[in-house]
Amino acid sequence: MANTRNARLAPKPCKFCAIAAGTEKAFIVFCDGHFVAFLDYRPLALGHLLLVPVVHYADLSDVPNCVMAELGVRVKVLSAAVMQAMTAEGSFVALNNRISQSVPHIHFHIVPRRKGDGLFSQGLIWKRVPYRDDAQRAAIAAKIRAAIPPSW
Amino acid sequence: MANTRNARLAPKPCKFCAIAAGTEKAFIVFCDGHFVAFLDYRPLALGHLLLVPVVHYADLSDVPNCVMAELGVRVKVLSAAVMQAMTAEGSFVALNNRISQSVPHIHFHIVPRRKGDGLFSQGLIWKRVPYRDDAQRAAIAAKIRAAIPPSW
Repeated sequence: MANTRNARLAPKPCKFCAIAAGTEKAFIVFCDGHFVAFLDYRPLALGHLLLVPVVHYADLSDVPNCVMAELGVRVKVLSAAVMQAMTAEGSFVALNNRISQSVPHIHFHIVPRRKGDGLFSQGLIWKRVPYRDDAQRAAIAAKIRAAIPPSW
Repeated sequence: MANTRNARLAPKPCKFCAIAAGTEKAFIVFCDGHFVAFLDYRPLALGHLLLVPVVHYADLSDVPNCVMAELGVRVKVLSAAVMQAMTAEGSFVALNNRISQSVPHIHFHIVPRRKGDGLFSQGLIWKRVPYRDDAQRAAIAAKIRAAIPPSW
């Protein structure tokens, strides 16, 4: 018989570790063995990416300096790809460390921006807009993947 | 006689270049010759830092990969220092690229966070809270400086 009490107390499996391992569905735009970037399921804007290290670090202080350095470079590369793919005028890069961090696996948000998109007005920040369906997710992921330089 | 038309058309001097050069007042918490971090003058929360490269890069695509790597590491170090100095429970790291970028010299925001601080609710994001005076700025800058490990 299953021990439901223990099951409830067991630590929740990490969703981003499962995405990195390929056991949880995600629309992946970038993967180099150490880092994975995929569409945020409930984006601030279409094309909103999450960039995570494959290794599970719960918060910023856990991340080795060498991994922070590699994240820094990938933030730039993915920002350019998102802007190109979504014909955006800018981008918003953000990391919530411990507070407002919905999944305790460190992740950078990379969000395409347009003038007048109202992201920071009217309390819209972290208010999500839906994708129409998985076909739209797949199409946008493919566009972003195509905008990443071949050397990445 | 001053040519007021040309004066109006001349590019505005960069405030962050001036801070890095020491010709504009700022409450500096970190400087290693290549990067400077200082208190945002009108912070989202007391202790809110801006981290900039000394070299002027207008937007993210201009920043060399090696500089992005160094920025990534410094984001982590300064986040920990801000959290320690301000006894914060978390931090918010953000970069506005081209849109919502008030000074066109690339900069990371590093903001201390507390549960229930309401940063993302009620349209508070990018709404500023004032420091009381320069004495408070100097005291907070000194606390953050003291929280940066000596090797930095």
